[in-house]
Amino acid sequence: MGVCGLRYRRSVALVDVPVALLGYGTVGSAVDRLLREQAADIERATGHRLRVVRALVRDAKGARHGDAPLTADFAEIRDDPEVAVVAEVMGGLDPAGNYVLELLRAGKPVVTANKQLVARRGAELFAAAAASGVQLRFEASVCAAIPVIKVLREALVVSNVHRVLGIVNGTTNFVLTEMERGASYDEALAEAQRLGFAEADPTEDVSGRDAAAKMAILATVAFGCRVTPDDVACEGLERVQPEDVAAAREMDMVVRLVGAATLTDGQVDVRVRPALVDRRHPLASVEGAFNAVMLQGDAIREITLEGPGAGGLETASAVVADLIAVVGTTGTGFLQNDACWRELPRLPEGEVSSPFYVRVQVADRPGVLALVALRLAAQGISIARLVQHQAERNATLHIVTHEAPAGRLRDALAEIDALQETREQASALPVISDRGVAELGWR
Amino acid sequence: MGVCGLRYRRSVALVDVPVALLGYGTVGSAVDRLLREQAADIERATGHRLRVVRALVRDAKGARHGDAPLTADFAEIRDDPEVAVVAEVMGGLDPAGNYVLELLRAGKPVVTANKQLVARRGAELFAAAAASGVQLRFEASVCAAIPVIKVLREALVVSNVHRVLGIVNGTTNFVLTEMERGASYDEALAEAQRLGFAEADPTEDVSGRDAAAKMAILATVAFGCRVTPDDVACEGLERVQPEDVAAAREMDMVVRLVGAATLTDGQVDVRVRPALVDRRHPLASVEGAFNAVMLQGDAIREITLEGPGAGGLETASAVVADLIAVVGTTGTGFLQNDACWRELPRLPEGEVSSPFYVRVQVADRPGVLALVALRLAAQGISIARLVQHQAERNATLHIVTHEAPAGRLRDALAEIDALQETREQASALPVISDRGVAELGWR
Repeated sequence: MGVCGLRYRRSVALVDVPVALLGYGTVGSAVDRLLREQAADIERATGHRLRVVRALVRDAKGARHGDAPLTADFAEIRDDPEVAVVAEVMGGLDPAGNYVLELLRAGKPVVTANKQLVARRGAELFAAAAASGVQLRFEASVCAAIPVIKVLREALVVSNVHRVLGIVNGTTNFVLTEMERGASYDEALAEAQRLGFAEADPTEDVSGRDAAAKMAILATVAFGCRVTPDDVACEGLERVQPEDVAAAREMDMVVRLVGAATLTDGQVDVRVRPALVDRRHPLASVEGAFNAVMLQGDAIREITLEGPGAGGLETASAVVADLIAVVGTTGTGFLQNDACWRELPRLPEGEVSSPFYVRVQVADRPGVLALVALRLAAQGISIARLVQHQAERNATLHIVTHEAPAGRLRDALAEIDALQETREQASALPVISDRGVAELGWR
Repeated sequence: MGVCGLRYRRSVALVDVPVALLGYGTVGSAVDRLLREQAADIERATGHRLRVVRALVRDAKGARHGDAPLTADFAEIRDDPEVAVVAEVMGGLDPAGNYVLELLRAGKPVVTANKQLVARRGAELFAAAAASGVQLRFEASVCAAIPVIKVLREALVVSNVHRVLGIVNGTTNFVLTEMERGASYDEALAEAQRLGFAEADPTEDVSGRDAAAKMAILATVAFGCRVTPDDVACEGLERVQPEDVAAAREMDMVVRLVGAATLTDGQVDVRVRPALVDRRHPLASVEGAFNAVMLQGDAIREITLEGPGAGGLETASAVVADLIAVVGTTGTGFLQNDACWRELPRLPEGEVSSPFYVRVQVADRPGVLALVALRLAAQGISIARLVQHQAERNATLHIVTHEAPAGRLRDALAEIDALQETREQASALPVISDRGVAELGWR
C-alpha cells in the first residue's frame, strides 16, 4: 500500500458519535452520566461528542426522568445505522453473547464490561470483530478501571510479556488481609459481607473462579492464544488455615490469592491459588479489596498496575475510556487484528516450577524432621527455610523449599504423608519471591 | 459534521511506515533493533510495518555494519516527504528542541524521549503539534517503559485526576532504600555509583531536579496547564539524616523522595521533596532503582503504576509503543488537541496541607516537650505520634503531626527554634499516609 500519510486536519466542528448501551443498570447509567458530565473533557481531548442515543432494557416503560431513550428491542440498536458504537453493560452470557456477536457481524464496534462473556467466548468474538474490521474492547471486564488490557495491547506490543501475576479478586484479598490482622476466615468473610465487598453467596469469589475468569482473559491477551476459565487450574481459600497466615508472617511473607499466567518455551500455564508472597514483592502490599497485576516481559522487566478492581463508577470509567479509544483508533487499523491468533499447548501440570511452602504435622520426636527432609531430598528438593511449632505431642513443620517442579513436590508429599510419624496430611502452597530484577536496578 | 463511520476495512497488504530517528545512540539503536526484531508482532497487532529509513547523527561516516542509513543533515529528514514519523532520541535542549519544532510545523508527527525538552518547552511543542494537526508523544520522557502518560491521556480522560504522587528518580530511591538497611548516605551513593545507578556527578538526581522535570511533565498532562521545572518547589536528599530514616522505621514508615502534584480548587501545587511514607502506602514498597506513580481521580480513586523508571531498552520500548500509537490513532483526531489548554494559578506555598514529621533536638529537661507542643498547638497543629531519643544531655523529638498547612507549621517551627531549650534547628518533612480509599474497599 506504500507510504501512509499520518497528517490529518484538525476538525473545526465536533464529530458526533451516537452511542447505544445494552443494559442500563448501575454501570450503564453511570456511563451515560459520565458521558454527559465529562462531555467538555472528552470533546477537548478527542474532538468528538459521545452521546447515548438508546439503551436496551428489559422493560422500556420503567424509564425515569433523565434516563437515556430506552428500548426493549435489540434490533432497534443493531439495525440503526446512526449508532456508531455499542457498550454492552448488561452482563451474563445469554443473551449478551449473541447480541455482541450480532453487532460485530453487523459492523458495529463494541465495548464490553462482561468478564464471563470475554472469558468464555472471547476467541469467537475477537474473530468476528477482526472479520468485520471493527474493534471489540473489554478493559472493564478485568479489574475495572485499572487499564491493564490497554497497557498489554497498546503499550507492550514489543515487550514479549511472558508472565502475568495478579491479585484480581478484591473479596478474597480483603478476607486474607483481615486474617493477617488476626481475624478468622469466617469473621473476615462476615465483615466483607457486612461492608458489601462479598456477596451473600460468596462461592464465585472464594472458590477462585472469579479470578480464574479474569486470568483467562489476561492470558489470552498477553500470549495471543485462547485460554478459557476451564483451562485455569483453580483453588480458592478452602485450604488456607490461620496457622498458614501466621507462619507466613513469621517468615516475612503474606498469603494472597494469586493468579499466575506463564508462557515457557511455547507452553502456557494459567492458575489461581493461594500463595505465600514475600513482603518486598509488589503484590504483597496490595491490601483490602484492591487489585494489582504485574506484567513481566523482555523489554520492560516488570510493570505493576494497582488500583480498585471493581465498583460501578470505576467500571463505567473504563467503559467510557474504551468508547473514546474506539473513536480514537479507528481508521488506520490499530488493533483490528485478532487478539487471539495462535494455539499454544499447555505446560504439563507437574512441570510448573516454583518455591513451595509446605505445612505438615508430625509426631514431635527427634529425627522426624530428618525423615521429612530426606523425602524432599529424594525428589531433589532442598529446604530454604523452616519454622517449627510444638503443640502437645505433635509438631507442625512450616517449610519453604527452593524452586522445584510441582510434580516432584507432589511425589515427595505423598511419601511424607505415608510416614508413620505424619499426623495430618501435608499441605503445599507456591511461594512468590522473584523480585530479583527490581533489586538489580535499572542500568 | 454528523455521524461518523467507525467501520474500516481490514487491509490485506501491510502499510509501510518509514520512520526517521534523531540520534542513534543507546536508545536510538535499540529502537531500530526493536522495530526489526519485533516486526512480526507489530505487523500482527497493527497491520503496519515500521522501518527506520534514516537516522540523524553528528558524523555519518561512523556508520557500522547493520546500522540504519545515517545522515548528518537534519534537512534530509525534515524535507523527506517519505518520512511518516520521527523519533527524537538525541537528548538535550539544543538543537533537539528546534528540530522537533520544525518537524511538527512541517506536519510530521514526533515521538520524543527527551525529558528536559518536554519539561521546558512542552507547551510550545504541544501548541505547534495541535496547530499542524499532528501528534507529539513523549511516553519515554517520564519513567521509561511505565506507561503513565498513555494512562493519563487515554485511559483517564473522564477521571478528573487531581493528584499525582510519584517516586520518579531511581538513583535517590536506591540511596534511600540502602540507608533503610543501615548504610550511610555516602556509602549508599558510592554503592549506587559502583552499580551504575548514579552518575559520577549525581547532583541532578540527589538535588531532586531530575524528579522536578518529570513532575512538571506529569502535572502538565494531568491538569492540562503549563508547569515547568521552575514552577516545581524542589528539595533533594540534603537534609535527610540517618536518624530520620531510623525514626521513620520506628514509626512503621519509610523515607522516599516523593514528587507531588495537586490540583485544589483550581490551584496547582507541584513539589519534590523527601517525605515519610506509611509502610502500607503503595509508594512505600517501591524499592531500589524502581519508580512508581500514583494517580488519584474522581472516577478511579487511585491507580498506581510501578516499574523500572530508566534503562536503554525500557526507554526504547516506550518510544516504539509511541510510534505504534501514532500510527494507530491518526485519522480520526484522537489526542490532536493541545494537551496544555489552560492557565491555572499556583497554590500559595503556605497553604499546602499535609501531616508533617518534625525532628528537633532539645535540652533533656522535664517540661520541654510541653513547650514544643504548646508552640505547635498555638498554630492549631496537634501531635499524632511521638518518639523521643535521649543522648547525653539532649533529647531528639521525632514528632508526626496531624494535617496542617505548611505556613502554620513554618511559623510554629520558627517559634520552636527560638526556644532557649532548642539545641538544633527543627527540621520538617511531609508525611504521606492517605491510603484511606484502599481500606474502604470497592463498593
